[in-house]
Amino acid sequence: MSEFLKNCWYMAAWSDEIGDAPFGTRMLDQPVVLYRGSKGQVIALGGMCPHRFAPLAKGKITGDMIACPYHGLGFDASGTCVHSPFGIEVPPAGKVPAYPAIERDDIVWVWMGDPDKADAAAIPDFSYHVDPGLRVVRGRSFVPCHFELVSDNLMDLTHARFLHPIFGGDDWRPEVSFSQDGDTVFSHYVLPPYPPSPFSDAIMSPANGRMVVEREFMRWNAPATMYLDIQFSWSDAPGENEIPQPSTHILTPETEQATHYFWASGIPADAAMTDEEHLEGLRFAFDEEDAPMLESVSAMMNGRDFWDMQPAILPFDQGGVRARRILRQKIRAEQDA
Amino acid sequence: MSEFLKNCWYMAAWSDEIGDAPFGTRMLDQPVVLYRGSKGQVIALGGMCPHRFAPLAKGKITGDMIACPYHGLGFDASGTCVHSPFGIEVPPAGKVPAYPAIERDDIVWVWMGDPDKADAAAIPDFSYHVDPGLRVVRGRSFVPCHFELVSDNLMDLTHARFLHPIFGGDDWRPEVSFSQDGDTVFSHYVLPPYPPSPFSDAIMSPANGRMVVEREFMRWNAPATMYLDIQFSWSDAPGENEIPQPSTHILTPETEQATHYFWASGIPADAAMTDEEHLEGLRFAFDEEDAPMLESVSAMMNGRDFWDMQPAILPFDQGGVRARRILRQKIRAEQDA
Amino acid sequence: MSEFLKNCWYMAAWSDEIGDAPFGTRMLDQPVVLYRGSKGQVIALGGMCPHRFAPLAKGKITGDMIACPYHGLGFDASGTCVHSPFGIEVPPAGKVPAYPAIERDDIVWVWMGDPDKADAAAIPDFSYHVDPGLRVVRGRSFVPCHFELVSDNLMDLTHARFLHPIFGGDDWRPEVSFSQDGDTVFSHYVLPPYPPSPFSDAIMSPANGRMVVEREFMRWNAPATMYLDIQFSWSDAPGENEIPQPSTHILTPETEQATHYFWASGIPADAAMTDEEHLEGLRFAFDEEDAPMLESVSAMMNGRDFWDMQPAILPFDQGGVRARRILRQKIRAEQDA
Repeated sequence: MSEFLKNCWYMAAWSDEIGDAPFGTRMLDQPVVLYRGSKGQVIALGGMCPHRFAPLAKGKITGDMIACPYHGLGFDASGTCVHSPFGIEVPPAGKVPAYPAIERDDIVWVWMGDPDKADAAAIPDFSYHVDPGLRVVRGRSFVPCHFELVSDNLMDLTHARFLHPIFGGDDWRPEVSFSQDGDTVFSHYVLPPYPPSPFSDAIMSPANGRMVVEREFMRWNAPATMYLDIQFSWSDAPGENEIPQPSTHILTPETEQATHYFWASGIPADAAMTDEEHLEGLRFAFDEEDAPMLESVSAMMNGRDFWDMQPAILPFDQGGVRARRILRQKIRAEQDA
Repeated sequence: MSEFLKNCWYMAAWSDEIGDAPFGTRMLDQPVVLYRGSKGQVIALGGMCPHRFAPLAKGKITGDMIACPYHGLGFDASGTCVHSPFGIEVPPAGKVPAYPAIERDDIVWVWMGDPDKADAAAIPDFSYHVDPGLRVVRGRSFVPCHFELVSDNLMDLTHARFLHPIFGGDDWRPEVSFSQDGDTVFSHYVLPPYPPSPFSDAIMSPANGRMVVEREFMRWNAPATMYLDIQFSWSDAPGENEIPQPSTHILTPETEQATHYFWASGIPADAAMTDEEHLEGLRFAFDEEDAPMLESVSAMMNGRDFWDMQPAILPFDQGGVRARRILRQKIRAEQDA
Repeated sequence: MSEFLKNCWYMAAWSDEIGDAPFGTRMLDQPVVLYRGSKGQVIALGGMCPHRFAPLAKGKITGDMIACPYHGLGFDASGTCVHSPFGIEVPPAGKVPAYPAIERDDIVWVWMGDPDKADAAAIPDFSYHVDPGLRVVRGRSFVPCHFELVSDNLMDLTHARFLHPIFGGDDWRPEVSFSQDGDTVFSHYVLPPYPPSPFSDAIMSPANGRMVVEREFMRWNAPATMYLDIQFSWSDAPGENEIPQPSTHILTPETEQATHYFWASGIPADAAMTDEEHLEGLRFAFDEEDAPMLESVSAMMNGRDFWDMQPAILPFDQGGVRARRILRQKIRAEQDA
């Protein structure tokens, strides 16, 4: 039984992934096709032709219309069939869903629920993506597990000490706390001064014997949209001249057991680290360290429900558990409505 | 719930696929082994040894007998166990099904239902396969979808305009009609004159500015045995000196979700196109154009029933829909009997 | 519905497979991690962290403790959580199962049932593994089928005539009988003199025109622990100066449909055959002859129950069938207790 929250914004793609050709994806276990209309606007439609179920993502775009690659039926931005190649009449049932889509902060957001409830104001802020004072790299990973396992991972960053040595390894020992503001959940981390890590070294001035001071918070919004704010400073002037490293962690379920993980990270434009090094550092952490661990966890669960497995709950799980509860409540409220 | 029509002829193989070694296949989700007996006749048996379920297709042939590769039990053409290697007694249950098999027109037909009802006269005509005035090429493709999706594809050839550019592309715009004669369904196509296609160019005399005139019909018989009769002529003498291109499209379900697609095509013996070109043109159309589309459609359906998905029905679907209905009626009649 | 016998010894690994790093495996469809403690002893624990289900086999060993690779929880040899990296309190539920483990005859035996019932005296004898008069080779194979199909294979060695030509092929025609001693089942084979096989040639003195005399028995204990005692002699002095070739065939279910097959074989220390030839001969028989056959059989069964398929039972199946019955009785008794 699929249990996704429908009435919320899901990230479907990075803006520059939607170009001249149709872009096919799967979200909430539904096929979706994205393309740009005649004015460059992003159009998001159900990705399956209602006639013989062909994938529209293999079709052709003409203006605002996309034509099915199999028998040529054409659909406009409202999902209505507006073209049949042999002049035949198309039954009114020949429609595909049209999803509200918004481009903001280089992200394409799509609303899979009731279109009348789509509220652009509800999109969380990622305006740092277009901050000229930062150099931002970004990517997408595929994680073969339920997206809430990835939320758990991100809402408890203590795992970095064991899984991501680039960020400091055994020296990286945060004090952790949690807070909540309405339906927004925060995990807070305060790091006692620690020796520079490979990562801090690449974006801060030379340490000259100083220790790194770090504070950060992760912000979560339903369904699984996370923003991580990190501020570095030096132990001789903690909290002063902070160097920011904001990052983005947005999860979109492909299916119940597979997740699109969109990530980005910004560093000061004048940092020593090149974009290539920055990108590869993140890619390695997500694709070579997190994803294999999460895939192993998913294999261990073998399709069983998370709560049915009675996990041992630790204090640091508060962020992930709150996120799970809020999401569950929203899904129930939506289904009861 | 498997729902195959049992009492009908299924194509199991091309004649020349059955040689010295046992030939294993799967039809109607049952293992089948085919081999030639002492007189060269084709023998078709259930492909699983009743003792320890080994695949007889890995066994050894001696005269009319095939011996299991695991413990050596031997079965004759009636499926009876006639040999045990250590002289032990075999229980009467030690039998495999024997299926009536007929070789005709280079096709091996097998009857999976009640042997008493097997009627050789019910086999549709493919005698053009052995017409000395034609050069015939043939092959088999594997399509990972329900066979009725392939029937749909073949009973509505308008898809060729979008999927198979070699046959004319956007210039190929047939007028379509349908007819029925008892349980035989026909799709008819009349093409207004169109510019020569790569395919027509290769089998007709030089165009010299003339347009191609084409008429064709597809003949369907249950379960999914199709014959396509194409006749080409020139726009300066439409219907005269027609050049035939008969073709064969026979589908045998491997399982509910996988199909053996046997195909053949004949052109005049004196056509310019070589057999290699002819074969590659067809192979490309089936393996590189049709099969990927059908696999995508099957993935979109994700195991759901065709009618439950409420497909939009267009006028051109009449052939496929009639075929589906006739087959459904036959299956119900067989199950009620 | 998983139906494994719990209260018995399963082979988890060869002794030398458990070294410095954690060794992860799956037994009875449960994850297990094996490692050596501070005194070199083998420790066997449930392989899944109770916190977020990470695989402990990717963790780190310190003394008797293994630490989870994801968030650092540490477990001792009793499966109790004895370390949390940030000083947080771990709930009592934060435990993993600890399995009794015994190393004997180069085998690591693990008891997955009630620890109080673990009785070292119940471990069958494989002391030939450490007999200095023999050269023993050993390995493990993976067979993608239910382990009882492999027991069937081993309790009826007549299949060797058809599947393993190295042992004599069509000349290898044993007289077979069966016996039982309590819950131990024996298959007995007496071979009428036959021409030397590639295998006998490699371990016996030159034949000089003599025939090989062979007698053997296979011993089975629940769940699927088998020992094969072979004795070769020459037809001019049958039963005298016998050359032994003891071998080991121990099966441990990975899942319902996959089997760890541990095998070993000893020949006289002064035999002509090298260890490399010996090992490759066995590996080929198991991996290239038995395993593909068993995989085919499993595919034929397609998840169906063995008895539901009403196999034809031959006299030679007695060993396998007795083994199946005894195991079934033990499982029922265990579940009823």
